Amino acid sequence: MADPVVPVDGLVVPASNGLPPHSQDSVINLDHGDPMIYEKFWKETGDVSSFKIEGWENLSYFSNRNNLCWFLHHEFASQVRRIHRLVGNASVDENCHIVVGNGSTQLYQAAIYALSTHPSLAETCRPIPVVSVVPHYSGYPAATDVLQSALYKWTGDANSFDPHTTDPFIEVICSPNNPDGRLNTSVFKQITNNIHDLAYYWPQYTPITNAADHNIMLFSVSKCTGHAGSRLGWALVKDKEVARRMVQFVELGTIGVSKDSQLRAATILRAVADGYEEGGGYKLFHFGRKVMTERWNRLRQVVTANGAFSLVEYPPPAYCGFMGEETSHLPAFAWLKYEGNLDIEDTANFLRTEHSMLTRSGKHFGTDSKYVRISLLEREETFNIFIDRMSSIF
Amino acid sequence: MADPVVPVDGLVVPASNGLPPHSQDSVINLDHGDPMIYEKFWKETGDVSSFKIEGWENLSYFSNRNNLCWFLHHEFASQVRRIHRLVGNASVDENCHIVVGNGSTQLYQAAIYALSTHPSLAETCRPIPVVSVVPHYSGYPAATDVLQSALYKWTGDANSFDPHTTDPFIEVICSPNNPDGRLNTSVFKQITNNIHDLAYYWPQYTPITNAADHNIMLFSVSKCTGHAGSRLGWALVKDKEVARRMVQFVELGTIGVSKDSQLRAATILRAVADGYEEGGGYKLFHFGRKVMTERWNRLRQVVTANGAFSLVEYPPPAYCGFMGEETSHLPAFAWLKYEGNLDIEDTANFLRTEHSMLTRSGKHFGTDSKYVRISLLEREETFNIFIDRMSSIF
Repeated sequence: MADPVVPVDGLVVPASNGLPPHSQDSVINLDHGDPMIYEKFWKETGDVSSFKIEGWENLSYFSNRNNLCWFLHHEFASQVRRIHRLVGNASVDENCHIVVGNGSTQLYQAAIYALSTHPSLAETCRPIPVVSVVPHYSGYPAATDVLQSALYKWTGDANSFDPHTTDPFIEVICSPNNPDGRLNTSVFKQITNNIHDLAYYWPQYTPITNAADHNIMLFSVSKCTGHAGSRLGWALVKDKEVARRMVQFVELGTIGVSKDSQLRAATILRAVADGYEEGGGYKLFHFGRKVMTERWNRLRQVVTANGAFSLVEYPPPAYCGFMGEETSHLPAFAWLKYEGNLDIEDTANFLRTEHSMLTRSGKHFGTDSKYVRISLLEREETFNIFIDRMSSIF
Repeated sequence: MADPVVPVDGLVVPASNGLPPHSQDSVINLDHGDPMIYEKFWKETGDVSSFKIEGWENLSYFSNRNNLCWFLHHEFASQVRRIHRLVGNASVDENCHIVVGNGSTQLYQAAIYALSTHPSLAETCRPIPVVSVVPHYSGYPAATDVLQSALYKWTGDANSFDPHTTDPFIEVICSPNNPDGRLNTSVFKQITNNIHDLAYYWPQYTPITNAADHNIMLFSVSKCTGHAGSRLGWALVKDKEVARRMVQFVELGTIGVSKDSQLRAATILRAVADGYEEGGGYKLFHFGRKVMTERWNRLRQVVTANGAFSLVEYPPPAYCGFMGEETSHLPAFAWLKYEGNLDIEDTANFLRTEHSMLTRSGKHFGTDSKYVRISLLEREETFNIFIDRMSSIF
């Protein structure tokens, strides 16, 4: 799932968007997963990724009134199916319903709404608990509880949840996991009430070992191609009634999804697929792997050299069906624990006050504040400053 | 506010988007306020309304991290201020906060969230009632109650609400009103907890008699320029804390608003303003008035001739500061009551089954089903069929 803002009071933070590079003494923001890493790639593709729309096009609310998801543009749907078939990361047979959303955050909420109002649960006690393994994505609790709904309620760590006390419940499985990059599977092995957040299940971050085939799977353009500003996600949904209720949620919340965004994203996804299938000469996932490999190598070097932090141990490399070779895990975030000599309980606060780096504290992910999540997707100059500063911490 | 879908079961409805014109015997859909009327105008403007974006542009989540509404693009904000100054329909001094949303439906929800969680109401009983004068926009009840929030609750007609029993409460004032085009003012004359939905307060629909200057005012591109598919609205908000909470709501729901849509809308609004200020030779509001005048004349003729329906009486023409002359009321919807000889209680059902016209029943607007709301914003060929069919009803 995508990555919202946790405001940081009292600091003037240079924007990563369209502003000059950071200077050596400025505050750098690694708090968000802002995917600026892809800007360089898209500059190199030139015209194939340009999008143009005339003033008279796409005025209507509707994309296809006869489709279950009436606001889903067919060109976007077509490119979504194509990219999944190209990459092999998710099953998209003709029976799966595509529901488009204003980012996968909206689709997460649409999914918990759809599951908790499903006719099969008509007799159940509400609010229905929503759980996820800790550390879990920092956005889930607030997105779940913002309106204090009587339908569902954030209940925290799946590992400390007793399913016998409250049944049904909803489990959210994020894999690769935000924040720690682990490959999570469902704790409870239930099938119908799982939501699989697969925003990072793309070959630049992890080996594609199988086509995921769950009841509800969430994806977003933000982490796939870098277009976070387009606020566009999609869900692949097996159960027609769940899909219908997700559509209803998006309809009641925002009356659909920008067709401008959908059409631009179709252009972008087409360029990605053409890069592989039409000899475009530019390969997004290879670009991503190359830069992420360099970044992880540099980060591991500095972490190993100075011993102040520990990193997560990832599974060994695995055969990636898309890359056609064994590949390693290159998560979008580093999940660091302070292990140095200073008496520090709040690592994010330490990095902010002593080293002018904004990171996200472990406490936002349901765990303790010895941990921090650090985005590795920022622009090159920001990453370089980050490595420089990390080298000075013992 | 914008206009969502009420699904109509069992009928195959020709899409109004990009499909061939309706035939004389097809079902015509006048249920939604789909603003296809503007397509012709935008075709005539040519290149000035084209929008192009490169693949590498606007990747970031952020538009301006230092702005209260951090996802508001400055070019869109600038054109919003410009169009209000040009038209004179709303006060946009430097102290007013612009909050952009995925359509004004999201901003309506953001506003009730912001008001019901405002620190000034910390000690109050919740859920806080939300009321609006009947007939009220059909989308308010469902958008309010979709998640069964403990914060607020749809309570219906403002005219049958006793403010002494439950204080505070939120009043929604839509003017010109959807569905009946009336110029509504607040029933209770409270100031802080009012939400003014001014989606139709543009010169093609009504005389602009003053610059509206309320605490929370909602607008959308859908009804101003016709770009409903862009899902873009904006709120003008006086109280900084209300604006901050509205931003938080949009952040938690969708992590901001598509920058693709914002930039395209900036292009469209710039073209509108340039048409008046830079001698562009095309004048959107004049186009809108011309077509709406023709349509209302034809509708009045047929209604007067056959006596089967009554229409709302609108206020007399008033001096429109923007047009520089006295102008009449030309609402986007006709609000019709069946008065004919047949024993018909459900007018929408009658029009659907006997005349193949989809309209929206009065019952969705908090009143009785003798009434129907009919969109006058569809394409010319659809409107022509509508008038033909209306002529045959006595």
